[in-house]
Amino acid sequence: MIREGLSPGAVVMARLDALADFTETPGQLTRLYLTPEHKAAALQVRVWMEEAGMTARMDAVGNVVGRYEGTEPDARALLLGSHIDTVRNAGKYDGNLGVVAAIQAVAELHARGLRLPFAIEVLAFGDEEGVRFPVTLTGSRTVAGVLDVGALDAEDAQGASVREALQRFGCNPFEIHEVPRRKDEVLGYVEVHIEQGPVLEAEGLPVGVVTAIAGASRYTVDVAGVAGHAGTVPMRLRRDALTAASEMVLAVERLAHGTEDLVATVGRIEALPGAVNVIPSGARFTLDVRSPKDAVRRDAVALLERELHEIARRRGVTVQIGKSYDEAAATCAGWLIEQLEAAVTRCGVRPLRLPSGAGHDGLAMVALCPIAMLFVRCKGGISHNPAEAITPEDADVAARVLVDFLSRFQPHEP
Amino acid sequence: MIREGLSPGAVVMARLDALADFTETPGQLTRLYLTPEHKAAALQVRVWMEEAGMTARMDAVGNVVGRYEGTEPDARALLLGSHIDTVRNAGKYDGNLGVVAAIQAVAELHARGLRLPFAIEVLAFGDEEGVRFPVTLTGSRTVAGVLDVGALDAEDAQGASVREALQRFGCNPFEIHEVPRRKDEVLGYVEVHIEQGPVLEAEGLPVGVVTAIAGASRYTVDVAGVAGHAGTVPMRLRRDALTAASEMVLAVERLAHGTEDLVATVGRIEALPGAVNVIPSGARFTLDVRSPKDAVRRDAVALLERELHEIARRRGVTVQIGKSYDEAAATCAGWLIEQLEAAVTRCGVRPLRLPSGAGHDGLAMVALCPIAMLFVRCKGGISHNPAEAITPEDADVAARVLVDFLSRFQPHEP
Repeated sequence: MIREGLSPGAVVMARLDALADFTETPGQLTRLYLTPEHKAAALQVRVWMEEAGMTARMDAVGNVVGRYEGTEPDARALLLGSHIDTVRNAGKYDGNLGVVAAIQAVAELHARGLRLPFAIEVLAFGDEEGVRFPVTLTGSRTVAGVLDVGALDAEDAQGASVREALQRFGCNPFEIHEVPRRKDEVLGYVEVHIEQGPVLEAEGLPVGVVTAIAGASRYTVDVAGVAGHAGTVPMRLRRDALTAASEMVLAVERLAHGTEDLVATVGRIEALPGAVNVIPSGARFTLDVRSPKDAVRRDAVALLERELHEIARRRGVTVQIGKSYDEAAATCAGWLIEQLEAAVTRCGVRPLRLPSGAGHDGLAMVALCPIAMLFVRCKGGISHNPAEAITPEDADVAARVLVDFLSRFQPHEP
Repeated sequence: MIREGLSPGAVVMARLDALADFTETPGQLTRLYLTPEHKAAALQVRVWMEEAGMTARMDAVGNVVGRYEGTEPDARALLLGSHIDTVRNAGKYDGNLGVVAAIQAVAELHARGLRLPFAIEVLAFGDEEGVRFPVTLTGSRTVAGVLDVGALDAEDAQGASVREALQRFGCNPFEIHEVPRRKDEVLGYVEVHIEQGPVLEAEGLPVGVVTAIAGASRYTVDVAGVAGHAGTVPMRLRRDALTAASEMVLAVERLAHGTEDLVATVGRIEALPGAVNVIPSGARFTLDVRSPKDAVRRDAVALLERELHEIARRRGVTVQIGKSYDEAAATCAGWLIEQLEAAVTRCGVRPLRLPSGAGHDGLAMVALCPIAMLFVRCKGGISHNPAEAITPEDADVAARVLVDFLSRFQPHEP
């Protein structure tokens, strides 16, 4: 039980600490989809939902769903939420903050005896990170009605399928068709999440309003040159794959620097054969390009492809660019952004809009309804790491913004 | 037995094919120092030396030494030779060509009944490649009197020391002190070797005269930046270790391109943590810098160190440059170069001087006496590879140049 009289932020922080104890490995936080620790965390979340005045249940893919009725029964619902699965050796805040903050906001309304002209549902999704199975966003994709039918056959490292894991978890995969929501019963989806980046910290702001979840394209780039003895081949006779790749890495950086709303990263590189005294015959690197604007990303990728081929041609090497991943951006709804921003302002914080470079459940939920996100400053922009941290003060701001937003929320009339 | 009436080049090629059968692995050539296949090859070489009119023996470190007496007994000797150990999955020509060509040259003199006013010794060194033990040039260093005393304790992967391996090979390590030659009994050391580079092929020449064996410095360069999420950290807030390293790799290439008598190579690189969606916090690469002129190499390294630190400073990352290897250049003697060049010209070939970027036994022998090398064109500059190849015609030119050189050789009178 959380002690009475605590600030909303303090309650949120205490609950996040408590949730972090549901882990595979004592002393560090690892909570994968459909594991016993996921079940325990889900049951805890359900208890908190019920304490906050909601009716709560687990759906057929392991999401916990709490509903706070409005003034009329069966009113359309504004959805809040995030995910309670984590990466391995995770921080406490990624995902869990959004679930706990949403429950806390409803608890505030409930404590004030406030019913709104719409229902509120809090969703605690079970699989956003995609760590256990080679699929991701299983919870939100199912709710949004866009789960790929093959996803249930995906297997974990031990060969257990999602379907089998669901049954062991206590879910009935044959009821999955009941999970998707109808568009006419939901008003929107709003998620609180840590920023996982350094922008709010650099701006000195506790929260910010997300404009869009960036789309991403990933590539593997293979450069082929000619190997040679590091001592015997004069510079003018070399066709060095790694110096060509180095020029390409700098071209990637230069383009991203010069393009608004674009980031691009080379995270991995190797030279082949990879010996101190051999001129590299090959170089391979990864390329990750993201933008909240799909056109910006597509144009940048097209420009980069031309530039990489030009570098290769000039150096007498060849380059192959293979796409490994492609996800469109999810744009947040302007009317939701404006209402969130108004709440931020009313709470005394300068409103700042920023894109989300990381992926979130909104990528799936946007297929169902308008989405919005409130980012919370995190220390050093660090995430997916035990050093992930937010302050109780910032948690408090986020909880207050959410309550303010809910209590003044106006559904969009198209 | 080699059939009578073959050209010297054909004999050389046939013997190189025959030697390639002494291998650890049938079908590919691997012949490491002090192995049974090394012993078998050494015995074969000794037979060929005796057939060429030499007295032959194995010394206490496994070198085969053949002596062709001059007109006077105990005359000072001109040393010829190379090594008969190989790398793993080697070509047939690296090292072995120099031994076989030297024996063939002596065989020609012997066939003509020609004795010269000096003796000729052919040395088949047992360890130039340094593959089996973590020491190199053991044979030539011992002959030159510069073997490090600890080298005999070096161990192979099975824990056998050089000393133990020598005993098993049939050598007496207690007689090693008898191996070094006195400066006053040798006139010089001349080695025929494949170029292991593309210069002669590019120039359309069968042979060339070496000016110096390049000195080499090797470094490991560590760049430390700040990790971050590839999607959430704006370009302006990044301190990416890999883009910094890429700029350094290009600085290395640019300096080497712009400096005469210098080559520099980055053969290995990695980014840390090395994930597609993480901005690299670290990057590590190797640097190999070579020049036939030590001052050129030292100046280039000093310039590079300054430039790498400047790149790091400008990008807000740090760089550490650790030296892992340093070997001075071995300059070939001008008077030997001139006499070799004259022989090349008399054989109808345009003389070309070129440095050796690879290391050779001359690096050790230069401590004993003046050295020189004759390079033979190799296909595509490829070496340390089964695709290593020379033509019988080029082998013939090399053998004829060597005979011509020997028959007109004038010892240097300082």
